[in-house]
Amino acid sequence: MPLEYDVLESSAQTDAYPTRDPEKETWRERVDPTVWQDWTDQAPISRGQADAFDRDGFLVLEDLFSTDEIAALVSQAAELRSALEGSDAAEVVTEPGSDAVRTVFNLETRHDLMARLSRDVRLAGIAQFLLNDEVYIHQSRLNYKPGFTGKEFYWHSDFETWHAEDGMPRMRAVSASLLLTDNRAHNGALMLMPGSHKTFVSCQGETPDANYETSLKTQKIGTPSQESLRDLAQMHGITDAEGPAGTLVLFDCNTIHGSNGNITPDPRSNAFFVYNAVSNALADPFAAEEPRPDHLAHRGTPSPIKLRTGALV
Amino acid sequence: MPLEYDVLESSAQTDAYPTRDPEKETWRERVDPTVWQDWTDQAPISRGQADAFDRDGFLVLEDLFSTDEIAALVSQAAELRSALEGSDAAEVVTEPGSDAVRTVFNLETRHDLMARLSRDVRLAGIAQFLLNDEVYIHQSRLNYKPGFTGKEFYWHSDFETWHAEDGMPRMRAVSASLLLTDNRAHNGALMLMPGSHKTFVSCQGETPDANYETSLKTQKIGTPSQESLRDLAQMHGITDAEGPAGTLVLFDCNTIHGSNGNITPDPRSNAFFVYNAVSNALADPFAAEEPRPDHLAHRGTPSPIKLRTGALV
Repeated sequence: MPLEYDVLESSAQTDAYPTRDPEKETWRERVDPTVWQDWTDQAPISRGQADAFDRDGFLVLEDLFSTDEIAALVSQAAELRSALEGSDAAEVVTEPGSDAVRTVFNLETRHDLMARLSRDVRLAGIAQFLLNDEVYIHQSRLNYKPGFTGKEFYWHSDFETWHAEDGMPRMRAVSASLLLTDNRAHNGALMLMPGSHKTFVSCQGETPDANYETSLKTQKIGTPSQESLRDLAQMHGITDAEGPAGTLVLFDCNTIHGSNGNITPDPRSNAFFVYNAVSNALADPFAAEEPRPDHLAHRGTPSPIKLRTGALV
Repeated sequence: MPLEYDVLESSAQTDAYPTRDPEKETWRERVDPTVWQDWTDQAPISRGQADAFDRDGFLVLEDLFSTDEIAALVSQAAELRSALEGSDAAEVVTEPGSDAVRTVFNLETRHDLMARLSRDVRLAGIAQFLLNDEVYIHQSRLNYKPGFTGKEFYWHSDFETWHAEDGMPRMRAVSASLLLTDNRAHNGALMLMPGSHKTFVSCQGETPDANYETSLKTQKIGTPSQESLRDLAQMHGITDAEGPAGTLVLFDCNTIHGSNGNITPDPRSNAFFVYNAVSNALADPFAAEEPRPDHLAHRGTPSPIKLRTGALV
């Protein structure tokens, strides 16, 4: 079957990060930069911050937003969740056995203030600088994890899934999570392994059809083995992204992260935007039959974000 | 039925902490002291530590044990777990779907070093001071919570269960947990609500027969409502009992505590001894038909611990 052979070879040539080998897990060196340009005094973050992002694969920034801006975002996020209670839209995920809204995808299309936030120079401008390109939104969502019963989310690299199931070619995307509640280690704050973004863990296993239907709740395919995670944690340690509401957590697409469950009364919520470089727009999935739905991964010709400056409200 | 009426009345008269009302939850003031005697310079802890225990209902003490003592305890705990792998003894609890040992009850009867530890002045001597009485072991166990898959344990007061199901009359018991691994908020360290020990949350609900068979895994009866927990956390905050292996966590029998699940690779383990005042020996259960088995609550005439001083090894 020469045609199939050709296709496979051609696809292999363009795949910088092969993954989901049914037989084995492997570690590969990252072939892409993390910060795609040299720092200058025109950059929207300090030289120290750029160096830290390059080294650690994340940055935790406090005091970027005013009290008024945070209050407006928090109250409008709550309104959005109430308005969508019981919705059966694919972009809205509710708690099992309840109408309470846990996740709202396509956040910037549902709400003017969130649209404004998604274009803000404090998020999208930093992403442009880090990626040295115009950016567009690959995925966005409002997350809400309740107190008392918040479930854990297991360790993974986002890029592994975006590459395998969405067709994101290279590591040239960054996530921005703006905290809408106080996050502490004991209420399930994001945990990151600093420096883990420099290694691509090519995961073992084949992608099942419509994997996303279960992987958004409990990810089983596309996660490193316990042995790899133990080694990575030993090499890199684990940092808790703690901070008050208003803290911005920026992390590289390949930084290994996860979060514990939460029995405290305090919920966790954030507005989450993934910025991808326009030059890194999606191809066909590298390790799945069909691409995931559009609300999980925006396909087609990307429209670059026009940055906005000034206060949100 | 005058006899039954008499029995009920007599039991009600001696019950300082009624609980498990099927109709309602109530808050009652603690009628017992926390520290049962005035501090003197003969005490095994400082005045500041005694005051903190009285105020908060717990103490976290580092550097009480030498590196050699901790190393011996850690290695012998691991040996004990290996030796009991796959055991079907009632005092040994294994991981669901595995032979790995999660809990070993009656710890001091299974191992000389653990017996020695249980009598050590650094544990039992502090308990004697706090309770102003001779003490005996109400319950003891070795706990081991694996990494990656460690499950949460929900908020509760131990005394509520010990009173309802074991017949412990008054709040005159203290738990000593000696950490055998590093404990951090993000690997599920014990969380305590400082000051919560001054309130008795009389829980709603009836005790099912053999409640302990499931409550040791997931406690449903004998836990405060979410509303109470939210109020208590608001009033008191939540403290993480963090520390390296060798840290001793002492907490009052009525301090509200719990622990989150743990997806980090780092397991948590501790040697756990509950010291009860000899004058507070168990009566019939206050809110259960039958007392729990002896490995969960030692019944009969208590034999006071003879304190031991000096190094463990």
